[in-house]
Amino acid sequence: MRVDGVPMRTIWPEAGAAVGIIDQTRLPHAMVTLSLRSADEVAEAIRTMRVRGAPLIGAAAAYGMALAVTGDPSDVSLHRADLLLAATRPTAVNLRWALDRCRRELAPLKPGDRAKAAWRLAGLICDEDVAMNRAIGEHGLTLLKARRHGDRPIQILTHCNAGWLATVDVGTATAPVYAAHDAGIPVHVWVDETRPRNQGASLTAWELGQHGVPHTVIVDNAAGHLMQLGRVDLCIVGTDRTAANGDVANKIGTYLMALAAKDNGVPFYVALPSPSIDWSLSDGGKIPIEERDPAEVTRISGLTGDGTVARVQLTPQSSPAANWGFDVTPARLVTGLITERGVCAASRAGLTGLFPERRGPEHA
Amino acid sequence: MRVDGVPMRTIWPEAGAAVGIIDQTRLPHAMVTLSLRSADEVAEAIRTMRVRGAPLIGAAAAYGMALAVTGDPSDVSLHRADLLLAATRPTAVNLRWALDRCRRELAPLKPGDRAKAAWRLAGLICDEDVAMNRAIGEHGLTLLKARRHGDRPIQILTHCNAGWLATVDVGTATAPVYAAHDAGIPVHVWVDETRPRNQGASLTAWELGQHGVPHTVIVDNAAGHLMQLGRVDLCIVGTDRTAANGDVANKIGTYLMALAAKDNGVPFYVALPSPSIDWSLSDGGKIPIEERDPAEVTRISGLTGDGTVARVQLTPQSSPAANWGFDVTPARLVTGLITERGVCAASRAGLTGLFPERRGPEHA
Repeated sequence: MRVDGVPMRTIWPEAGAAVGIIDQTRLPHAMVTLSLRSADEVAEAIRTMRVRGAPLIGAAAAYGMALAVTGDPSDVSLHRADLLLAATRPTAVNLRWALDRCRRELAPLKPGDRAKAAWRLAGLICDEDVAMNRAIGEHGLTLLKARRHGDRPIQILTHCNAGWLATVDVGTATAPVYAAHDAGIPVHVWVDETRPRNQGASLTAWELGQHGVPHTVIVDNAAGHLMQLGRVDLCIVGTDRTAANGDVANKIGTYLMALAAKDNGVPFYVALPSPSIDWSLSDGGKIPIEERDPAEVTRISGLTGDGTVARVQLTPQSSPAANWGFDVTPARLVTGLITERGVCAASRAGLTGLFPERRGPEHA
Repeated sequence: MRVDGVPMRTIWPEAGAAVGIIDQTRLPHAMVTLSLRSADEVAEAIRTMRVRGAPLIGAAAAYGMALAVTGDPSDVSLHRADLLLAATRPTAVNLRWALDRCRRELAPLKPGDRAKAAWRLAGLICDEDVAMNRAIGEHGLTLLKARRHGDRPIQILTHCNAGWLATVDVGTATAPVYAAHDAGIPVHVWVDETRPRNQGASLTAWELGQHGVPHTVIVDNAAGHLMQLGRVDLCIVGTDRTAANGDVANKIGTYLMALAAKDNGVPFYVALPSPSIDWSLSDGGKIPIEERDPAEVTRISGLTGDGTVARVQLTPQSSPAANWGFDVTPARLVTGLITERGVCAASRAGLTGLFPERRGPEHA
């Protein structure tokens, strides 16, 4: 998407065996890019959420493998990078998917051939991500158009950032929004701030603003009230891992939004590129939920009056906090899944209807 | 309740025609008291939320009337103070209730008799508040005991601050918690931080900590996940205004918590002193919902590393925000109302069962 009017991706190969990223922990207050030069640096960037979002984590992991085999193409190096990168974040399945694909394609090659193949594969994973997201955008656009009433903007609510910044380009949940906006269809996005890390307020608001899409930030608590007021036409969120029955793991709080949507008859869609589907899990109860540093709850960073970024303490020093990164929205609350192959019901039958090659008990 | 081991109330008369308050905008980082010397100063304190919480706003308004008639006991002064104070916050009905009561009792008196009567009435409103909250505590304690399983602490989730700080003393939603804790029954409170103003993280966590009640702060988004995990035995929240049919207006986000409680079979109780009931409203759809400064969403205050309090910007400078202060939880999601007269169903029949003097179409 565009930044200051210039199209760019969120991750790119750089000369001299490096990969460029946007340091997303600096947004929205500063746009800073970084060059990563080793699998360790990629792992650190994923762990600290300089790169985040399930699809982008997958792409970054593939570049991490490329950096690893460029430095040392041995089996040991390949294995070590795989373990290192897989351990960075537990919930997003795209990470495991990308690493499995890299290992499967690189391991049979002679060590001397691995680096070139790994860079090509990482680039391919990126291009495929963009193509999937564009397809999600087209399928989602049809849903958006169906919710259009006269000339007023279509009101879309989203949670966290399943945008351009969570992917290589275009985004998943935002893909239909950008498709509509670029086609001249008026849209307005209600952006949940998404505590504790505020990816909505800091990332989604920023990227929508950069691309010129009208939007308004709300606290997560306000999403239900907005739906009660009839001011949301549909919800679209992303996912870090969706089980084979359509249960959706996504950023903490998604479940609450889905409950409110159900209670108010607002369609609740999940944008779902197929690498986010964990076909090995029969339901969402088995998805591992990341527990993160309580300091993400008790402290927050922001821009001070003098233009510096400061971290401030919100809670009493002696009050403990707990911090789960994700929750699971049961399939019964999901109106539909928007995949690169089309829209389906959030169920095993719905998913295997679009992905017939996955029929049968075991395809993991 | 206790602050640094010393019992205190949240509002008190001071020598020389003044009323003392805790400046709640400074908590949890500093415990600062203020002396208010006019109805204008009381109105400013309510508007800026130095005093907040429906019952405490009512008590503060009564002291505001006392200050007004002490300075000028005329009918014009009484009327002006009434209008001034009533306009400070739209949602809490206790404000209207306290002002009506003051006007009704003071207006018939000779101007020379009004000041003394007004101070006595404000003190009486405070004492009645404490007595109601203690009664709510006793009725709620019975509910808590019923959820006890062996020796493990009873797990209570609350939203915003319906605690000691929202009332004159004891609190409404916290009254059963303090009653249990003081009786030696182990309790643990999950404290929703309650964006945007974080009254949970800054006020509820602080007062529970001061009183020694075990608690853990979570982001509002985590409440549903906690209930899915089976880690909440019951929810108790307060209310700013409850309609005659049991629909409950409370801090924004309460509706989402109630939806999650319903979906997970967790009892959801509202602590409801009778001045919070608006008998004139047949349902919650007619409760005015305060819209507040979007800067409460886009900026937040906290303690910096050097011990000063700073306000930081969270969102991109160009992204707009919207900020509703309350939402309405439909009675169908409320397990029961805990009033000073006992626990009842959230319905007109339930409420008039406890308050038979309110039967009939019009008692406003």
